[in-house]
Amino acid sequence: MSTQIPWQERPEGNNDVMWRYSQNPIIGRYDIPTSNSIFNSAVVPFEDGFAGVFRCDNKSVQMNIFAGFSKDGINWEINHEPIKMQAGNTEMIDSDYKYDPRVAFIEDRYWVTWCNGYHGPTIGIAYTFDFKEFFQCENAFLPFNRNGVLFPQKINGKYAMLSRPSDNGHTPFGDIYLSYSPDMKYWGEHRCVMKVSPFEDSAWQCTKIGAGAVPILVEEGWLLLYHGVIQTCNGFRYSMGGAIVDKNQPNKVLYRSQPYLLAPAEPYELAGDVPNVVFPCAALHSVEEDKLTVYYGAADTVVGMAFGRLSEVVKFIKENSL
Amino acid sequence: MSTQIPWQERPEGNNDVMWRYSQNPIIGRYDIPTSNSIFNSAVVPFEDGFAGVFRCDNKSVQMNIFAGFSKDGINWEINHEPIKMQAGNTEMIDSDYKYDPRVAFIEDRYWVTWCNGYHGPTIGIAYTFDFKEFFQCENAFLPFNRNGVLFPQKINGKYAMLSRPSDNGHTPFGDIYLSYSPDMKYWGEHRCVMKVSPFEDSAWQCTKIGAGAVPILVEEGWLLLYHGVIQTCNGFRYSMGGAIVDKNQPNKVLYRSQPYLLAPAEPYELAGDVPNVVFPCAALHSVEEDKLTVYYGAADTVVGMAFGRLSEVVKFIKENSL
Amino acid sequence: MSTQIPWQERPEGNNDVMWRYSQNPIIGRYDIPTSNSIFNSAVVPFEDGFAGVFRCDNKSVQMNIFAGFSKDGINWEINHEPIKMQAGNTEMIDSDYKYDPRVAFIEDRYWVTWCNGYHGPTIGIAYTFDFKEFFQCENAFLPFNRNGVLFPQKINGKYAMLSRPSDNGHTPFGDIYLSYSPDMKYWGEHRCVMKVSPFEDSAWQCTKIGAGAVPILVEEGWLLLYHGVIQTCNGFRYSMGGAIVDKNQPNKVLYRSQPYLLAPAEPYELAGDVPNVVFPCAALHSVEEDKLTVYYGAADTVVGMAFGRLSEVVKFIKENSL
Amino acid sequence: MSTQIPWQERPEGNNDVMWRYSQNPIIGRYDIPTSNSIFNSAVVPFEDGFAGVFRCDNKSVQMNIFAGFSKDGINWEINHEPIKMQAGNTEMIDSDYKYDPRVAFIEDRYWVTWCNGYHGPTIGIAYTFDFKEFFQCENAFLPFNRNGVLFPQKINGKYAMLSRPSDNGHTPFGDIYLSYSPDMKYWGEHRCVMKVSPFEDSAWQCTKIGAGAVPILVEEGWLLLYHGVIQTCNGFRYSMGGAIVDKNQPNKVLYRSQPYLLAPAEPYELAGDVPNVVFPCAALHSVEEDKLTVYYGAADTVVGMAFGRLSEVVKFIKENSL
Amino acid sequence: MSTQIPWQERPEGNNDVMWRYSQNPIIGRYDIPTSNSIFNSAVVPFEDGFAGVFRCDNKSVQMNIFAGFSKDGINWEINHEPIKMQAGNTEMIDSDYKYDPRVAFIEDRYWVTWCNGYHGPTIGIAYTFDFKEFFQCENAFLPFNRNGVLFPQKINGKYAMLSRPSDNGHTPFGDIYLSYSPDMKYWGEHRCVMKVSPFEDSAWQCTKIGAGAVPILVEEGWLLLYHGVIQTCNGFRYSMGGAIVDKNQPNKVLYRSQPYLLAPAEPYELAGDVPNVVFPCAALHSVEEDKLTVYYGAADTVVGMAFGRLSEVVKFIKENSL
Amino acid sequence: MSTQIPWQERPEGNNDVMWRYSQNPIIGRYDIPTSNSIFNSAVVPFEDGFAGVFRCDNKSVQMNIFAGFSKDGINWEINHEPIKMQAGNTEMIDSDYKYDPRVAFIEDRYWVTWCNGYHGPTIGIAYTFDFKEFFQCENAFLPFNRNGVLFPQKINGKYAMLSRPSDNGHTPFGDIYLSYSPDMKYWGEHRCVMKVSPFEDSAWQCTKIGAGAVPILVEEGWLLLYHGVIQTCNGFRYSMGGAIVDKNQPNKVLYRSQPYLLAPAEPYELAGDVPNVVFPCAALHSVEEDKLTVYYGAADTVVGMAFGRLSEVVKFIKENSL
Repeated sequence: MSTQIPWQERPEGNNDVMWRYSQNPIIGRYDIPTSNSIFNSAVVPFEDGFAGVFRCDNKSVQMNIFAGFSKDGINWEINHEPIKMQAGNTEMIDSDYKYDPRVAFIEDRYWVTWCNGYHGPTIGIAYTFDFKEFFQCENAFLPFNRNGVLFPQKINGKYAMLSRPSDNGHTPFGDIYLSYSPDMKYWGEHRCVMKVSPFEDSAWQCTKIGAGAVPILVEEGWLLLYHGVIQTCNGFRYSMGGAIVDKNQPNKVLYRSQPYLLAPAEPYELAGDVPNVVFPCAALHSVEEDKLTVYYGAADTVVGMAFGRLSEVVKFIKENSL
Repeated sequence: MSTQIPWQERPEGNNDVMWRYSQNPIIGRYDIPTSNSIFNSAVVPFEDGFAGVFRCDNKSVQMNIFAGFSKDGINWEINHEPIKMQAGNTEMIDSDYKYDPRVAFIEDRYWVTWCNGYHGPTIGIAYTFDFKEFFQCENAFLPFNRNGVLFPQKINGKYAMLSRPSDNGHTPFGDIYLSYSPDMKYWGEHRCVMKVSPFEDSAWQCTKIGAGAVPILVEEGWLLLYHGVIQTCNGFRYSMGGAIVDKNQPNKVLYRSQPYLLAPAEPYELAGDVPNVVFPCAALHSVEEDKLTVYYGAADTVVGMAFGRLSEVVKFIKENSL
Repeated sequence: MSTQIPWQERPEGNNDVMWRYSQNPIIGRYDIPTSNSIFNSAVVPFEDGFAGVFRCDNKSVQMNIFAGFSKDGINWEINHEPIKMQAGNTEMIDSDYKYDPRVAFIEDRYWVTWCNGYHGPTIGIAYTFDFKEFFQCENAFLPFNRNGVLFPQKINGKYAMLSRPSDNGHTPFGDIYLSYSPDMKYWGEHRCVMKVSPFEDSAWQCTKIGAGAVPILVEEGWLLLYHGVIQTCNGFRYSMGGAIVDKNQPNKVLYRSQPYLLAPAEPYELAGDVPNVVFPCAALHSVEEDKLTVYYGAADTVVGMAFGRLSEVVKFIKENSL
Repeated sequence: MSTQIPWQERPEGNNDVMWRYSQNPIIGRYDIPTSNSIFNSAVVPFEDGFAGVFRCDNKSVQMNIFAGFSKDGINWEINHEPIKMQAGNTEMIDSDYKYDPRVAFIEDRYWVTWCNGYHGPTIGIAYTFDFKEFFQCENAFLPFNRNGVLFPQKINGKYAMLSRPSDNGHTPFGDIYLSYSPDMKYWGEHRCVMKVSPFEDSAWQCTKIGAGAVPILVEEGWLLLYHGVIQTCNGFRYSMGGAIVDKNQPNKVLYRSQPYLLAPAEPYELAGDVPNVVFPCAALHSVEEDKLTVYYGAADTVVGMAFGRLSEVVKFIKENSL
Repeated sequence: MSTQIPWQERPEGNNDVMWRYSQNPIIGRYDIPTSNSIFNSAVVPFEDGFAGVFRCDNKSVQMNIFAGFSKDGINWEINHEPIKMQAGNTEMIDSDYKYDPRVAFIEDRYWVTWCNGYHGPTIGIAYTFDFKEFFQCENAFLPFNRNGVLFPQKINGKYAMLSRPSDNGHTPFGDIYLSYSPDMKYWGEHRCVMKVSPFEDSAWQCTKIGAGAVPILVEEGWLLLYHGVIQTCNGFRYSMGGAIVDKNQPNKVLYRSQPYLLAPAEPYELAGDVPNVVFPCAALHSVEEDKLTVYYGAADTVVGMAFGRLSEVVKFIKENSL
Repeated sequence: MSTQIPWQERPEGNNDVMWRYSQNPIIGRYDIPTSNSIFNSAVVPFEDGFAGVFRCDNKSVQMNIFAGFSKDGINWEINHEPIKMQAGNTEMIDSDYKYDPRVAFIEDRYWVTWCNGYHGPTIGIAYTFDFKEFFQCENAFLPFNRNGVLFPQKINGKYAMLSRPSDNGHTPFGDIYLSYSPDMKYWGEHRCVMKVSPFEDSAWQCTKIGAGAVPILVEEGWLLLYHGVIQTCNGFRYSMGGAIVDKNQPNKVLYRSQPYLLAPAEPYELAGDVPNVVFPCAALHSVEEDKLTVYYGAADTVVGMAFGRLSEVVKFIKENSL
C-alpha cells in the first residue's frame, strides 16, 4: 500500500488497544445536501488516494449507497447522486434499498457488497474498476441476510464471503457464516464461523455478531474486525471486536477477543438516530508502518475513525481470547 | 393576524426548508415548580399576544394541561395550577389524565382538544373564551384515540376533526382519520385521510403518523403539519412532515412530503425522557409576511420552535410529494 | 312474539341454568357450497318464521354475511350469495370484509350491525325491511371496533349501541362501551359499561368481553348475553355470560354473572378452526312461555343452539352476581 | 408411470375438487416402535411399487427421516432405523435433526431434500439409487430455510429448487423462492416466486406459504401443491392450495388458487400434536388416468391421503385464480 | 402399603413402559356441582382406602382445592366445598387462589403443597391429620413459583422440597430446584436439580419442566415423575418423564429419561380447556407388587390414570437416560 | 457516625428536596484499567473513612464486584481485582456473575448482598470484617430475584431483607417484598411490602420498583430509598423515590412519595450504556447534622452523588404521600 493511510498517534496516558480520532466524526450527518445521516461506510486505497462507498440515508430516510473520494482518507468528497447500477452477470438488478456497503479489491477490480433490498434484506454484489461505473451481479443469497463481507483474495480458488443470516425485522439473533463461490454467481459450502458468546463470558457480543471490515491478512491468519451486540433493557448496543481465523480454512476461529476493541462512549456514539452504536465497515492498514485505521458508523448517524497498532491489536486478541 | 408572530431569519448557509430557533428550547422541563417536563403544547394568538395550553407532567409523572400567556410567543408565563374544567355540553367530564393539547379558534371561541384519559386514551374537547374558564364537552370518540386536531373552521357546515385511532399501550401503528360533527357532541362520517408510507418510500413515517398543528388554510388547500414515526432497533423516532389536503374534502390528500421537514438532531431532541422526538402541536403563521412558526415538543421533555417561509414549505411539499 | 320459538326441554338430570340442543350443531361448516365455516350469526322472528344474517367464511377464508330464512328456527335456508348492500344514509359503503352480524328490530325495520372492514375492523350498520334489500349506512365508529350490538328500542329518544373498542389484530383486551346516536349517523355520549373481571374473581372473563345478543328487556332491566375470554397458555377460550343493566341508563350494570352460563365442552366447541369458542350473537325469547333460545358460534366453525328458562337465567345472574 | 397409483373415487354427493381417503389416516402415530408421530412424508414410484422417506419423530421428540416401502402406496413398511447418510459431494454432513422430507427423481437417481439442522434449519440434500444407501451433499442454503422442494427435471440445464426462507423459531412469515444450481453444490439466481396473499383476498394463505409436493408437469406449466397458513387467535392453521407456474421460468406464477384445495376439518386434522394442520409433502399422479393422489401430514401427527382428478384440479386453479 | 392400589394389567400387544386406564378419565369435569374442570390432583393411601386433594376450578373459573375420599382409588367422593384453612405456623394465610396440589405423608401427618396465590403464584403449605382439618403454614418461597413437591421423608434431618421458579404469567421457561427447611417455615440451601433439555436431544422437555408426583424411594435413589413441555407453533404440549436422583443428595441426577413416559394422544388429552396436556401430580406404588399407578391431569380438564411396573419404569429410565 | 460524610450545600435558587453534587459523576466509567463502566455501588463508613463495594463491568462486559476505599467518600481507590469469595456458611459459592451490591453493617460485621448469578439472578450474601476477606453464604432465595437489601439491624430477633422477585430477563414487572431469617441461611415469612403504583397516580414508579439503599432508621420508621421505573415507548426510565415503613413491622408502608426524589435529567444520566437511569444503591446519613448523601448509578455507566436534608426528605415523603 503506497498511499499514506490516515493516522493519529495514541493520546498521552491512553492505554487502550485502539483509540479514536480526535476530530471525530470525520463525516457529518448532513455532509451531502440530501442526507439525513452518513454512516456504516467503506473505504479503500484508490489511485493516489482513497475511494469509498458510503451509506447515505436521505431525508425521506431511504437508504442508498454513494461513491466518494479523498486524498487523505479524512476529508471526503461524496457524490450527491447515489450509485447507478448497470447489469453485471445478471439482468435482475432489483433493489428496494441499499445499505451498509463494504468494498474489497480482488485481483483486478473492486467488489462492493451491501445489504440489498430484494423482498427483504439480502447480500447485493457489484464490481467497479473506477468507482464511476458499477456492475451489479446476482444477489449472493436468499433473503434474509446482512453484513456480507468478501475476503480480499480467493481462498482455495474460490471467492469467499462472510455473512450473517437474519430475519425480516430488527433481528435479535445473528451469527457469522462463510460461503464460497466459484464464479460470484452461485454460492455454497456454507459453514458456521462463529456464534454469539455466552452472556457470562462476553456480554457485549451475546445477542448478535456480524462481520465488519474486509479481513486483513496477518501472519497468524485473517484478522476480522466485527461488531457484537448486547440487548440491554433500553435497546441494542453495538461494539467492535476482533478475531483471527485460519488462513486457508477461514471458518476455523483461532482467536477471538473476549473484551471489545471499541465500544460506544463518546457523545456522537451515545446519541443519534440509533443510540449506542459503533459499527465498523472498513479498515486501512499498513504492515510496514504497523498501522490499522478503522472506519465505523457511530449511532447510525455519522462516520468516525479509530486507530491501533496492527501488531498490538493482533497481540491483544491472542492474549484476551474467548 | 395583527400580532407579530415570533420569528428568526434563516441562518446563513442553511438551505433547509425549516430551521430551528437559535435559543431552543424556549421552555425548559422545570419551568414551573411542579413540572418534570413541559412539551407537546399548543399556542394561539390571543388578545395582544398569545395564549397557550401546555402539557406539563409533574414530578409524579402525572400528565395534565395548563394555561399560559405570552407577549411575544417566546417567553411564557405558564400557570402553576392545571386547568380546572367545568361542565360544557355534558356532566360527564371524567379524566384520568390529559396530554398533548391542541387549540383551534372557531367562530367565537377557542376549542381545546387533547388526549383524555377515560378508560384509556381518547379525545377530550373543551372550549374557552378567555383561557381562564374552560368548559369540557363530551369526548369525541370511544377509546383508544390520540392526536385529535380540529380544523379552524367548519367544513360543509360541520366541525371537522383529525385523529389517530390507537390502542391502549405504546401503539406501534397509526393512521390519520377525519370525522365530522354537527354539534361537537356526536361524531360520524369517519374517513381515512392518510396512512403510513411504505418503508422503501419514506421510512421516517412508516410506523405511525398523527396530526400535529391545527391545519392552516393556504391557496392549495389545508396545510397539515404532522408527525411521522419510524421504529429503529432502539425505539421510536418522531419527525415532522407536511401535507396539503383538499379545502372542502379534507380527506383527499393532494400532496404529502416524502422527506421530513424537521427531524431530531439537536441534543435536546436526541436525549431526554424519550429520546429522538420532534412532535409538532401548534403553528403560528402570517400569509402576509410569509412566515410559519412551529411549536414542537422535543424528546418529550421541552418545547422548541422552528421557522419556515410559508410559501417555501408549501412549495417543498408539492415538489417532494410522496 | 307470535311465532313459536325453537325449544327443547332441559335434559333429565341436568341442573345447569342453560343446556344445549341435542342435535347441535344446527348449521354445519359446509352448509352452503362456498363455505368453509358458518358461525357467529344472528336470527330474528320474521313474518311467520325467522330470518337471519349469517357469517359464512368462504373457502378463500373471506368473511362475508348472508341472509337466510327458516320456518322453525332450526332448519335454515341460507342464500348462496352474500348480501349486496345499497347506499343508505351515505354513499361511502366501502367494506373489505363483513363478519359477526347482529340484527335488531327497531320501530319499523331491521337493523344489521357487523364488524366491517374499513382500514381495519369497525362497526358497519345497515337496515332492511325484508331481508332482500339492505341499505348500508355510515360506519358507527372509527376503527378499531368489534361486536357492535344495538338495543332493540330507542333509549331516551336516541339509538343506543354497545361495542368493544379493539386494535388491529387479535386484540388481547376489550371492554364493553355504550354510545348514543340521534340519527344512526353521528355517535357520541360514549360510556364504559363493564370491564373485564379480575382474574381471581371470574377468570373466564378476565381477558376481554364483548356484547353478544341484542339485549332483552326484562323486569329488572336489559338482559345482556355477552362473551368473556380467558387467555390460557394455549390460546383464547370464549364463554358466555349474562348481565342486567339499567333500563334507562344502560351503562349502569345492576348484575353480572360471576359464573359463565355456557362454556366450551362439546367436541364441536373444543375443536374446529378456532378451538374452545362459544360465541353468542343472537337470542330468541318468549316472556309468556318463559323461554330463552341462544344462537352461538362454536369453534369459529359451526352454529349451535342453547336453551334456558328466561326467569331462571335472570335469577341465576342476580344470585351469582360478580 | 406404470404402477397403479393409490386411488379412491369421489364419494357420492361430494362436490369438492379434492376428497379424502375414507380410511385416513393411512399411517398412525405409533406405526413404528419408537415413533411419537409420523407425518409430513414423501413417496415416489419405485420399482414395482412405491418407496418413501418418512418423518418419524421418536418418543424423545427427536426429528429424523426413515425409508419405507409399499406395494400399493397405502400400506407401508417403514424402517425402524433412521436413514444413515454417507458422504456425497462433501464430507460435511452434520445434522442436528432432519424433518419434512421430499423426494424427486431426476435423470438417474432419487434426490431427497429435507429441513436439515445445521445451526438452525436449512435445506439438506441427498441422493439415493435404491433407498438403502443415501449420499448427503452440501446444504443448499445458509440457515434459516425450510420446505426445500426440487423440480423433477433440470430447467434451462440447471437444477431448480423452491424453498421458504425462515427464521430460527416458529417463523410467522414466509414466501416461496426459486434458486438454481449447476451442480447441486452451489446455488444462486434466487427469485421470489410467490408471496403470502392479502388477508382480504385469501386469508388461509396470508401468514406464510411453502412449497409442498414436487411440482407436476401439466400442459399449462408446473402444478405446485403448497401449504398456506393463517394465524388465528389460537395459533396457526395450515391448508393446501395449488398454483401453476411457467414451465421454463418457474418463478412466473400463471395461476394460483384463491380458495384452498383442502383444509383441516377431520378429527385427525383438528387434534394432535399440532392442531389444525394439513401439510402436503408429496403427490402421485397419472396423466393418462387423470388422477392425483396427495400425501399430507395431519396435525403434525399422522399421514393422510387425498384425491382429485388432475384435470379438475388444474381447471379449478385456473378458474379460481387469485 | 397395605391397601390394594388401583391397577389394570398392560393391554395385549402394548409394548409401552406405561399404559392408560381403559376407563379414563376417572374423574370428569363436572363431577361436583360447581366444577368447570377437575384435574392436576393428588391422592395418597389413607386409612383403609385413599384420600386426595383435588383441583376443582369452578364455573367462575376460580381455582381451589378440595378434599376427597375413595375406597378403591378409582371412584372418588369429592367434597362440594373447598378446603377451609386454619392457621398453622403463621396467621398469614392469605390466598387469592389455590391450584395443582400435591400430598406427602411425612412422619406423622399429611403435608399438602400447592400453588398459592399471594401477589402471584408461590408455594403454599398445609398439614392435616385427617383430611378434615387443614392447617396452613408460611408460604415456602417468594413469588413466583409453581410445582412445589415435598420429599416423603426428611433428608439429612431437613424437609426437602422440589419447586419450579416461574414468573407472573404463562411462564415460557422453568427448571427444577431443591430447597431445604429445618422447620417448614424458613427455607434455604437452594440447588438446581435439573434443567430443560436441549431441543435436539429431547424436545418434549425443552421448554420447561416441573416436579410431578411425590418422589418414590427405590433402590437406585428417588424416582421423580415430572412433566416436560415443548412449545409448538400452536402452544404448549405437556408430557410426563421420569428421573432418578441421589438418595441423600437429591440435587444430583443419576438418570433422566430421554423419551417421555406418557404424552398426550387420547381425545381427552388432546382437547379440553387446554389441549395437549398430560400433567402428573401423584402416584401410588407397591414395591412388593411391582406396581406404579400415576394420577395425571388431562387437558386441564379431567383426571386420568396410568400404570406401569415399577421395576420396568426404573429400568426404562436407566436404559434411556439423557 | 463519627466520620464527616461527603456533603455540598443546596445550590442557590434550587428548591428541590434533593440536589446533585456539582462534580458528578464522582466515579467515571474507566476509573479502573479493566472497566467498561462503574455504577450501582454501595458505600459505608469504615474506620476513619469509607469503604465500598463497587459494580465494575469489565470490557468483556462481565459483571463483578470490587472493594474500594476512600477518605472523604468522594475520591475513591477501587481495587483492580474483583472480590474473591471464601466459603462462609456453605461450600456452594457458585457465581456466574455479581452485580448491584449493597452493604449493611449489622452487629459486628459488614454484610454484602448482591445480585448473584446462579442459574439466573438471585440474591448473594457475604460478610466481611475488613473489606479484604469476604465469606460467601447461601443464596437467600431461589432465582429469580434482584435488589436484595438488608436492614441494618435485626428486627424481632431476625435478619430482614427486602428484595424484588423477578424473571430471567429484562423483567418488566417488580414489587418489593420482605423476608426474614433467623440465621442468614434459611429465609421465610415473605411479605409483600409495596407494589408498583397505578399509572394515573405516579407513573414514574408504575412498571417496577426495587429497594435501593440500606434502610435508615428515623423517628417515623425506616426510610427506604428505592428506584421506580416507567416504560416509555423508548425503554425503561429509572428514578428514585422514598418511603417510610413501620419500625417493627417493616412490611407496613406508612408513607410513600408520589413524586420522585430524583430523576434522570443530567447528560450523564440521559446517555450512557443504558440511557435514563438513576439507580440508588447506598446512602450515608447523619441525624445530628441532618444530612443525607445518596450514591446512585447513572445510565448504568458512572456513579453520582445527591444530597438532601434528612428531615426535609422525610417531611417531603410524608407530605407528598401516595
